[in-house]
Amino acid sequence: MIEIFAFSKENGLRRMTDVAVLPGLLKEETEFVWVDLESPTEEEAQILSTIFNFHPLAIEDCIAESHLPKLDDFGDYLFLVLHGARRGDSSGGFKTVELNFFLGKRYLVTYHQQLSRSINRTKERCLKNSLAMSRGMDFLVYEILDGTVDNYFPILDDFDEVINDLEHEAIHNPSKETLNRIFSLKRDGMSLRRVTSPQREILNRLSRDPFAVINKRTAIYYRDVYDHLVRIADLAESYKDLTTGLLEAYLSVVSNRLNEIMKLLTVFTAVMMPLTVITGIYGMNFKNIPELNWSYGYPFTIGFMAIIAFVMLGFFRWKKWI
Amino acid sequence: MIEIFAFSKENGLRRMTDVAVLPGLLKEETEFVWVDLESPTEEEAQILSTIFNFHPLAIEDCIAESHLPKLDDFGDYLFLVLHGARRGDSSGGFKTVELNFFLGKRYLVTYHQQLSRSINRTKERCLKNSLAMSRGMDFLVYEILDGTVDNYFPILDDFDEVINDLEHEAIHNPSKETLNRIFSLKRDGMSLRRVTSPQREILNRLSRDPFAVINKRTAIYYRDVYDHLVRIADLAESYKDLTTGLLEAYLSVVSNRLNEIMKLLTVFTAVMMPLTVITGIYGMNFKNIPELNWSYGYPFTIGFMAIIAFVMLGFFRWKKWI
Amino acid sequence: MIEIFAFSKENGLRRMTDVAVLPGLLKEETEFVWVDLESPTEEEAQILSTIFNFHPLAIEDCIAESHLPKLDDFGDYLFLVLHGARRGDSSGGFKTVELNFFLGKRYLVTYHQQLSRSINRTKERCLKNSLAMSRGMDFLVYEILDGTVDNYFPILDDFDEVINDLEHEAIHNPSKETLNRIFSLKRDGMSLRRVTSPQREILNRLSRDPFAVINKRTAIYYRDVYDHLVRIADLAESYKDLTTGLLEAYLSVVSNRLNEIMKLLTVFTAVMMPLTVITGIYGMNFKNIPELNWSYGYPFTIGFMAIIAFVMLGFFRWKKWI
Amino acid sequence: MIEIFAFSKENGLRRMTDVAVLPGLLKEETEFVWVDLESPTEEEAQILSTIFNFHPLAIEDCIAESHLPKLDDFGDYLFLVLHGARRGDSSGGFKTVELNFFLGKRYLVTYHQQLSRSINRTKERCLKNSLAMSRGMDFLVYEILDGTVDNYFPILDDFDEVINDLEHEAIHNPSKETLNRIFSLKRDGMSLRRVTSPQREILNRLSRDPFAVINKRTAIYYRDVYDHLVRIADLAESYKDLTTGLLEAYLSVVSNRLNEIMKLLTVFTAVMMPLTVITGIYGMNFKNIPELNWSYGYPFTIGFMAIIAFVMLGFFRWKKWI
Amino acid sequence: MIEIFAFSKENGLRRMTDVAVLPGLLKEETEFVWVDLESPTEEEAQILSTIFNFHPLAIEDCIAESHLPKLDDFGDYLFLVLHGARRGDSSGGFKTVELNFFLGKRYLVTYHQQLSRSINRTKERCLKNSLAMSRGMDFLVYEILDGTVDNYFPILDDFDEVINDLEHEAIHNPSKETLNRIFSLKRDGMSLRRVTSPQREILNRLSRDPFAVINKRTAIYYRDVYDHLVRIADLAESYKDLTTGLLEAYLSVVSNRLNEIMKLLTVFTAVMMPLTVITGIYGMNFKNIPELNWSYGYPFTIGFMAIIAFVMLGFFRWKKWI
Repeated sequence: MIEIFAFSKENGLRRMTDVAVLPGLLKEETEFVWVDLESPTEEEAQILSTIFNFHPLAIEDCIAESHLPKLDDFGDYLFLVLHGARRGDSSGGFKTVELNFFLGKRYLVTYHQQLSRSINRTKERCLKNSLAMSRGMDFLVYEILDGTVDNYFPILDDFDEVINDLEHEAIHNPSKETLNRIFSLKRDGMSLRRVTSPQREILNRLSRDPFAVINKRTAIYYRDVYDHLVRIADLAESYKDLTTGLLEAYLSVVSNRLNEIMKLLTVFTAVMMPLTVITGIYGMNFKNIPELNWSYGYPFTIGFMAIIAFVMLGFFRWKKWI
Repeated sequence: MIEIFAFSKENGLRRMTDVAVLPGLLKEETEFVWVDLESPTEEEAQILSTIFNFHPLAIEDCIAESHLPKLDDFGDYLFLVLHGARRGDSSGGFKTVELNFFLGKRYLVTYHQQLSRSINRTKERCLKNSLAMSRGMDFLVYEILDGTVDNYFPILDDFDEVINDLEHEAIHNPSKETLNRIFSLKRDGMSLRRVTSPQREILNRLSRDPFAVINKRTAIYYRDVYDHLVRIADLAESYKDLTTGLLEAYLSVVSNRLNEIMKLLTVFTAVMMPLTVITGIYGMNFKNIPELNWSYGYPFTIGFMAIIAFVMLGFFRWKKWI
Repeated sequence: MIEIFAFSKENGLRRMTDVAVLPGLLKEETEFVWVDLESPTEEEAQILSTIFNFHPLAIEDCIAESHLPKLDDFGDYLFLVLHGARRGDSSGGFKTVELNFFLGKRYLVTYHQQLSRSINRTKERCLKNSLAMSRGMDFLVYEILDGTVDNYFPILDDFDEVINDLEHEAIHNPSKETLNRIFSLKRDGMSLRRVTSPQREILNRLSRDPFAVINKRTAIYYRDVYDHLVRIADLAESYKDLTTGLLEAYLSVVSNRLNEIMKLLTVFTAVMMPLTVITGIYGMNFKNIPELNWSYGYPFTIGFMAIIAFVMLGFFRWKKWI
Repeated sequence: MIEIFAFSKENGLRRMTDVAVLPGLLKEETEFVWVDLESPTEEEAQILSTIFNFHPLAIEDCIAESHLPKLDDFGDYLFLVLHGARRGDSSGGFKTVELNFFLGKRYLVTYHQQLSRSINRTKERCLKNSLAMSRGMDFLVYEILDGTVDNYFPILDDFDEVINDLEHEAIHNPSKETLNRIFSLKRDGMSLRRVTSPQREILNRLSRDPFAVINKRTAIYYRDVYDHLVRIADLAESYKDLTTGLLEAYLSVVSNRLNEIMKLLTVFTAVMMPLTVITGIYGMNFKNIPELNWSYGYPFTIGFMAIIAFVMLGFFRWKKWI
Repeated sequence: MIEIFAFSKENGLRRMTDVAVLPGLLKEETEFVWVDLESPTEEEAQILSTIFNFHPLAIEDCIAESHLPKLDDFGDYLFLVLHGARRGDSSGGFKTVELNFFLGKRYLVTYHQQLSRSINRTKERCLKNSLAMSRGMDFLVYEILDGTVDNYFPILDDFDEVINDLEHEAIHNPSKETLNRIFSLKRDGMSLRRVTSPQREILNRLSRDPFAVINKRTAIYYRDVYDHLVRIADLAESYKDLTTGLLEAYLSVVSNRLNEIMKLLTVFTAVMMPLTVITGIYGMNFKNIPELNWSYGYPFTIGFMAIIAFVMLGFFRWKKWI
């Protein structure tokens, strides 16, 4: 699907879908043009080479799912690959949305296979406020990026929540399921770090290095996006330590709990042993065991066994073993 | 709440609360102006844009809780976000206080949602000594920062104390509560590192890079704050190793203690086993067990069992198992 | 085996195997020459010194298996050692293929002991499209490198698959074999990192630094290969964390499983102990044990023992120990 | 306590204690002056500001115990904080001695709260050889630093010895005390790293960067001190790995030893169990147990029990369990 | 022992042992002089200061065992400390040989306390081929370094072999001795890293930085030695991971093996318990136990006990516990 937004001071904002108007618009010195390709057909994607004449390598990277953020400066235009993120179906997980940008002085081409909330929101803003595109194409990219980066925060909140949940679960009610969730959290955190760290570097370059197509006044806005990404990458990094801590806590608690049980049961067994020996003694068939003939031999022995058991329990308790 | 401190050599120090005087003061070449906004209303916060005309991004970051220290140079003024720290309610914890600074050549705007001890102390010093503001606004910032950074040291002392406590507890009286406290210490240490490390970088830039609004002679004072922050960040970093060591110590001691118990009880069980077998033997109903008819069979057997028990205990002791 | 590809605009593409033509070709200003030595004899390898007059150190490194990627700039020509990879026989493993390049302005010498798929494919492309060599020798190197690097991806897919397999195996059916496979995966991952990281650095230099024999327009193609290598090295790095996670998961699951068994058996033992004591009590030979003479003493005692066993099991279940 | 050493080619070396002569000496272009303040009174310390007029921040850092090495260049003079080390009372520990230097072109002020062996030795050398101060104040600093750094080596030797001791102890005779000593060694090693690493950086700057008060010919001597510090920091770093290895060894050995005991005792218990069952069988009161009436039933059963025990022990030994 | 090799185009190569000729040789513009001091007496060592007039610090470092590689540029000459390695007596270990070089434009002084194979081999080459010294003293150093570095490879092969051995041992036959060997391997690997990493840096500087006494054409040969050292340091680094992996494997296998034993024995004990209870039941002295009077009570009970044992074993096997 192709959508074209054109803006000039004379003509205001126009929304079109026919690519035939593009060559004309691109020649007009006063026109700003934004072309958005959402999950385009192969035919639609060909405008990248036929109309815009982008470098074959950039087009290849644009069409392929590249997984890795990228910033290539071709002089006339920048080629930019970044990733948005969307809550996954299950709790704590997330999915990435690849966004490709070709940013020229007077045009912007965005290319994405999946629906992007931040691009849609920017479109709406353009339609509502016809001056939105008048601040230049680099500012338009800023607006999209700002929305994209802001979408990370609910995901980070999810992480926080899951970590808190798991911390409580690991300490108070650890189960095999807890272990599974910790490992899945670990993997999600790793994905998050791998997605955010290189984006941070790219925004850093966008905000700091001089590029022909980026106005110096816009760079400070990119800096702002960069600052947000620093915080995101920072949090993603800290989830690593937290998850490792979770695993340590889980293992400590599980092992402690099991040890407690083993200890109690071993104590119990130890208390029973002397009783068995005593009953064994008076079960022996010796002719001459005086106690057996005493009138109160039996209750006395039972009482003695009870005393032994209580003394041992008392001793273990005094030793703080139970 | 807005407080305005104005100083000029002719007029001395004046303390005001009415923002209406600000435009006039800012125009005077000889006036130094400090505007402090403590948990301001939305209306009060608007002077940032209406009177000072700061960059919208800086104002946005100022009003939002940004969690991350920041240093943005807008040429005419610096925008600075730093964090003070305050002892938390519980032992060992701490809370951060976000301080925002807009530092111009002849004005300083401080903005903070919570009461800040170091800002209050600087105000008092200005009121007592009317020349306090005469060394320039950058020096005023130094005085606030110096106080802010010094407030970290009691928190570090708390950490030291808690670590020493926990070390003693982990080695001599480890309990599940110890584990909880270690993990909470770990998290606090992580927060401390995340708050102090970026601040150190910012003070480094403040003391080293040339900024239009910072006098070269003040930079050496910033360097001093930087040195303090290096030490704080260094200590915060070392708490990481110490906490990991604590956890290792705890786990070693708990595991050793449990193993000791298990060992003793297993030894005990092992000693009881042969006694049971012996009583079992003389409990058998064979017609022809000569020992059963001996007059001293019973006391002899009891004695034999006692000897076996003692020999085994002696053997275990000799082997250093008990 | 030596193959020679010569191309000039006048003469088109020619494929030869006789080294005698080389000196003549190299003198012609308009000829591009590619010499491929595949597992050459010692005699064949001598053309490196006799005809091309390369530096003795470069020739030595070329002939020896150097294991380490390398980029040496000799001004007139670059000497380049890179490694392709091929699936190993067993699942998850891989083998490296060393490729040596001497890249001059108008000639390219490739030297490799083993068959290289990417070199063969480039040869085929040259034979099919006679203009393939017209874009310069540096572009030819790009085409070979691009193929070489693309060959890493199936190996990475193998890794992914093995990791997923092992993850499932470690959590649901851990055995000693799983441990062996995890350690072998760990070693493979280490090899992969050691092969890819230095190659990434070399491609970085190739794409960024100015070299006499590399056209600036080709550098962007090298950049593309570099981007692929960044992703490969990145994935290889992440396998490290994943493998460590695997080991942790395996150890946790094995230890949990064993602990479960030990716990159940200990519970079982603990339930049996009091029963033994009770039978012992009524096995004692005291003259005067009233219960022994009761008519229903025996069934009552058996019932009492059953009750004790059930109460204990209920207690353990209530405590969630079983 | 204040000691003043003055040297000029005309007047030779003089040793004084009266600060009143200082202003005169400092004015003389040909005089070299060394002022040593050892645990000075507050009054004595005031010469830093009254006579030398040092920067207030430097004086503040000098008087406070700063814990962190420091190098501040004030143009006319360098302010330097470094730490010597002294064997602690207990084995393996050490204490640091803070040394403050103000190094000018023709004067040196040393300030330290505790007695410093290297400063005393340098004083003696000056008194013995009146030309010792003629090589400049920067060379005097080198001589003090050289002595200071050399004092680290006996401490490193102590470390080595303690590590060797503990290694032997951990493998052959591990006790709870061993664990304590390992943790205390760990803490000492951490202190050593924290003291030596920043000093190394400072000596690196002293030997490499140009400073007004340091002669280029002296820099190579500073380089030598730097090389020693590199080695010290390197060793301190390696103690980290060695201590971690110690802990691992200790834990492995303790756990192995305990497991050995548990295994032996469990084997012992397992051997006793069938014997108990057999005695139980012939202790049953069935009317009709033929074996009970056999003449040799009893010795035969005892023999059978012995055979069972030996077969089991043999089996366990064959399995290498005992 | 002092050996002097002098070479000039006019006089060819001469081998001398008398230091008296040195001053004369050093004055001749056309003479190349190599002085080798092997475990020299104190008197012999004095030529460093008396004849060559080297810097006192360099001489001090040369005579002392410095343990740390070093490269000091004194303008006229370079002072270089590097370490060769020799197989130790025991398998897997190694010893270092310190080599000191003073490299001038026309002279080379080598100083070593122990016999050095690579120096001896270079001497032989000089004696065989009189032109060996004609390529300059820097090339002579390259030849010695090349031999020195090549001597590391057999040691690395030893490491490889020991690691493979230990891997097999750890998985198939782990014993306490294995643990000792792993820890000793760990220490050796650490020594190897500490020896090779700084040498790599020094060769990097030698091959890259401009030095007055090193010909630019020789630098590429130094680069080659550097590449070998990169590979050595790389392998040494990878031994770290491999050794850690070994320890993990050892601990996993030992713990698994022990757990297996414990499990089997516990299962065995659990099977015995109910049998004991049954024999206990029929050993009770109740008047009225009907089963005791049955003719087949005894064999029936024995059979019942056998069935219980088999059912339990079958259950455990079904659960995959044994």
